[in-house]
Amino acid sequence: MEEVLNDLKEWLRIPSVSSDPEAAGEVRRAAEFTAMLFRKAGLENVHLIEGEGFPLVSGDWLHAPGKPTLLCYGHYDVQPADPIELWRTPPFEPTVIGDNLYARGAADDKGLALILIHAVQRFLKSGEALPVNVRFLYEGEEESGGEHVSSYVRAHPEAVACDAALICDTEMFAPELPTICVGLRGIVYAELSVETGEVDLHSGVYGGGVPNAMEAAARIVTALKDDEGRIRIAEFDEGVIPPTQAEMRSWAALPFDEIAYQKEEARVFALHGEPGYGLFERLWSRPTIEIHGIGGGFTGEGAKTVIPCVATVKLSCRLAPGQDPVRIGRLLSDAIESVAPVGVRTTLKILGSAAASVVDPENPFVREAAEAMREVFGQQTVFTRSGGSIPIVGLFNEVLGVPSVMTGFGLPDDNLHAPNEKVYLPNVYRGIEAIARYWVRLGERTVKQ
Amino acid sequence: MEEVLNDLKEWLRIPSVSSDPEAAGEVRRAAEFTAMLFRKAGLENVHLIEGEGFPLVSGDWLHAPGKPTLLCYGHYDVQPADPIELWRTPPFEPTVIGDNLYARGAADDKGLALILIHAVQRFLKSGEALPVNVRFLYEGEEESGGEHVSSYVRAHPEAVACDAALICDTEMFAPELPTICVGLRGIVYAELSVETGEVDLHSGVYGGGVPNAMEAAARIVTALKDDEGRIRIAEFDEGVIPPTQAEMRSWAALPFDEIAYQKEEARVFALHGEPGYGLFERLWSRPTIEIHGIGGGFTGEGAKTVIPCVATVKLSCRLAPGQDPVRIGRLLSDAIESVAPVGVRTTLKILGSAAASVVDPENPFVREAAEAMREVFGQQTVFTRSGGSIPIVGLFNEVLGVPSVMTGFGLPDDNLHAPNEKVYLPNVYRGIEAIARYWVRLGERTVKQ
Repeated sequence: MEEVLNDLKEWLRIPSVSSDPEAAGEVRRAAEFTAMLFRKAGLENVHLIEGEGFPLVSGDWLHAPGKPTLLCYGHYDVQPADPIELWRTPPFEPTVIGDNLYARGAADDKGLALILIHAVQRFLKSGEALPVNVRFLYEGEEESGGEHVSSYVRAHPEAVACDAALICDTEMFAPELPTICVGLRGIVYAELSVETGEVDLHSGVYGGGVPNAMEAAARIVTALKDDEGRIRIAEFDEGVIPPTQAEMRSWAALPFDEIAYQKEEARVFALHGEPGYGLFERLWSRPTIEIHGIGGGFTGEGAKTVIPCVATVKLSCRLAPGQDPVRIGRLLSDAIESVAPVGVRTTLKILGSAAASVVDPENPFVREAAEAMREVFGQQTVFTRSGGSIPIVGLFNEVLGVPSVMTGFGLPDDNLHAPNEKVYLPNVYRGIEAIARYWVRLGERTVKQ
Repeated sequence: MEEVLNDLKEWLRIPSVSSDPEAAGEVRRAAEFTAMLFRKAGLENVHLIEGEGFPLVSGDWLHAPGKPTLLCYGHYDVQPADPIELWRTPPFEPTVIGDNLYARGAADDKGLALILIHAVQRFLKSGEALPVNVRFLYEGEEESGGEHVSSYVRAHPEAVACDAALICDTEMFAPELPTICVGLRGIVYAELSVETGEVDLHSGVYGGGVPNAMEAAARIVTALKDDEGRIRIAEFDEGVIPPTQAEMRSWAALPFDEIAYQKEEARVFALHGEPGYGLFERLWSRPTIEIHGIGGGFTGEGAKTVIPCVATVKLSCRLAPGQDPVRIGRLLSDAIESVAPVGVRTTLKILGSAAASVVDPENPFVREAAEAMREVFGQQTVFTRSGGSIPIVGLFNEVLGVPSVMTGFGLPDDNLHAPNEKVYLPNVYRGIEAIARYWVRLGERTVKQ
C-alpha cells in the first residue's frame, strides 16, 4: 500500500496538462514515468510509441496461452488546474487528508490507471504468472482530444489484438457500491468565434451605433437551448436511442437521494434540466449543450469601457447513443448560422468528437468483472452509465470489434475537471484486489479459437 | 514643436494604467512627470495633492486681475493596453508613423492634456503674461472611476474657484472641422456576479442535471435588451430629455458619410442600434447597455469540459440627459433580479457612475472658444455632443456652478480605449495655437464682479 501511494504521489507531481502547449515537457516526463511504472510492475516490451502528439506507453505480458487477452487502457495526462485560486491544496503537490488524496489527476486518471499497473505487479513481483494475457496501452492526450491513440490503433490493430478492453476511468455509484459502467455519452467539442468588426471600440463614442460581439455571442448560445434546458436545434434529437425499460427500472432502483446529490455532491443552488426526463436520463442518455467560457472583451480588474469586436465561445454537446458526431457538428454549425444576428460573422471549429457507446451487461467479460467486484466490496455490482465521454471505447469497438469493460473505482465527489480533485485511497487498494480477482476468474476460461 | 513631441513621448512611455493595481508605481511616476511639465511651462504653486487614491497635480498662474479665471482639467492616467496582441507597435513605446503618434494615452488624454500645458508655456516662456488666470488640476483616476478629484473639489471648492472649466479630452467631428462638444452622456458601470453553485462541475458527469452560470449570465444580459437594441427595462427611459429641434437640425447638417463611418471608422460589418432613432441620436442622446466581457469558466487553449459555477459580467449603461445614475443603477439591479433564472444568485456592484451634462452653446466661454478655433482651423466651429462620459463636467457644474468648455482636438479614428490608440500630431500643434488665441480673446473681457 505504501508503494502504491508513493508511486501515485510521484506521478501526480508531474503537471501533465496535455491541452497546455507550455506543459509539453511535463507531459513527456509523465510518459517516461508511466513506462517506468510498467517496467517495475513486470510488464515486458515496455516502450514509448512516438507519433503525432504525445507518446503512447506500451507494454505486455503474453505468457498465458489459450487464455483471454485484455487490452488495459488508461491515460497519464490531466486537465488544466485553473481556476487555480479555488484549490485548497496546490494541484500538483499531492496531499493526503484523511482517506483522500488531493491533486489534479488523482481520480482522472492517474489514481485509477495505477490500479491496473499494480494488479500486474501483485502477481509478477511475487513470482506468480498472470492468469490472463495483458497488453497495456496508456495515452497522453485523453484530455485534449489528441488523435495519436486513434491513429495508432487504426494503423496497427494487430499490436493491440485482444478479446476485450479493460478501462479504469469511471466511478462507483456510491462509496461502497461496486459499479460497472455500460454506457457512455458521446461528445462534440467546439470553439465558436463571433466577430462584429475589426477593432474593439469605445462604448461612449460608439455605444448605440454598433453591434457588440460579446452580446451577439450571448444571444447565439442562449438561442441554442431554451431556458428550461430543451435543445432548440432542428433534427438534433433524430435517431437518439433511448435506454431500455429494464435499464430505466434498474436506474430507478439505485440508492439515491436527490436533495443530497444537489446540495452535497453537485453543490448547486438548484438542479436543472430538460423537462419530461428523470435525472439519470438527463445525465446518462440525453444530449446536452454546455457553454464552458466566453473569451474576449475586458474581464480584468477595474472598469474598461470597451465594445468587443470578437468573442470566442468554448462549447460542447454531449451525445446520446444513436447520434452521429459529424452530423451533430453540422447541425450545430447550421443552427449557429441561422440564429446569428445581422452584421455578425461566426466560425465554428470542431476541436474533438466521439460517438456514444453502450455495452451489453450480459457480455461474459462484463459479468466476471461484476462478480469479482462483488466479492471484494461485499455488495451486488450495479450497472450504470456515465454522462462523460471516453472516445477510446468507441474506437476499440469499431476497430477491434471488442467490448470495453469499464470498472470504475472513483467516487461521485472526486471533483473531476474541477478544483480540489481527489481520489478515495481505500478504493485504489480495493480496486487492485478486485482486478486481480477478475483476472483469476477470467483465467479459468479458455478462449474459443 | 520638437519640445512638445518630446514631452509627449516621454509622458506616454509611463504606463499609468490606473485600473491596474500592479501599475500603481507607474501612475505615481506619471503624476510626478505631470508636475514637472507644469513647472517647466511656468505655472506656480505646483504640487501633488495627496489623498485617497492617486494624487491630483495642481498649479496656477493668477496674475491677471479682473480677467476671467479658467480651471484647466486633464488626466494623466490611461486605459489598460489589453488585448496587447492586437497592437501593431508597443503601447508604451510611442511611435510616430506619418503625422500620427501611436501609444496608449496618445489621445486619451496625454496628447490633449499637453495642449493646455504648452499653451501656458508659449506665453510664459517668451516672457509674456497670460491674458487670463488659470488653475490647473490634473487627475490620475479618470479611467478607473476614482473619487479623489471629486472629494477634493467638494472639500475645497475655493481652491478651484473659477469662471469656467476648460477640458481638453474630446474630439473633432472631422479632421479639419473645429468642434466644441456641448453635451456628454452619463454612465453607470457595473460588475454582475452570477452564481449557480459552489464548484465548477464536469460537463460529462453533470451536464443535463445542473445549471450553468455562464449560460445564466448570457441569458440575463441578453434579456436586458432586445436583439434590435431596445432596452427592455421598465421605466428606464422615464425623464430622458431629448435634444432640441435646433440641435437635431444642426446634427443633420454635419458632413457625414454613414458608409464611410461604418467601414473606415467604426470598422464594423454593419451598424446597429435602437430602431426609430438616427445615428447621432443613438450615439449622443440615447441611453445604452453594453457588455464589456464575461469572465469565468474556461477560455484558454484546448478543450476543458467544465460547467462554470460563477460568471462575472462587466457591463455599463450610457445615460441620456435627465437620467439619474442612482435610479438607473437600481432599475438595472431590479431588472437583473427579475430575469435571473431559478437557482441563480446575482450580485450587482456599481463600480462608477456620472450623470449626463449639457452646456448652452450661447455661453460666452463657449462662444469665444468657437471663434478662436475658427481662426486657427479656418472653418466655422460646429457644436456636437459626445456619447462618452466625463464625470468631472457634472462635478464642476454641480459644485462650482460653472460651465465646462470642451475643446477637443482628437479625431474619430484615434482608437480610444482600443489597440493602436494614436493622436494626429498637427492637431496637437494647432490645438496649442487655438487655446492661446482663446485666452487672448477671453483676456479682452473683464469679469463682472
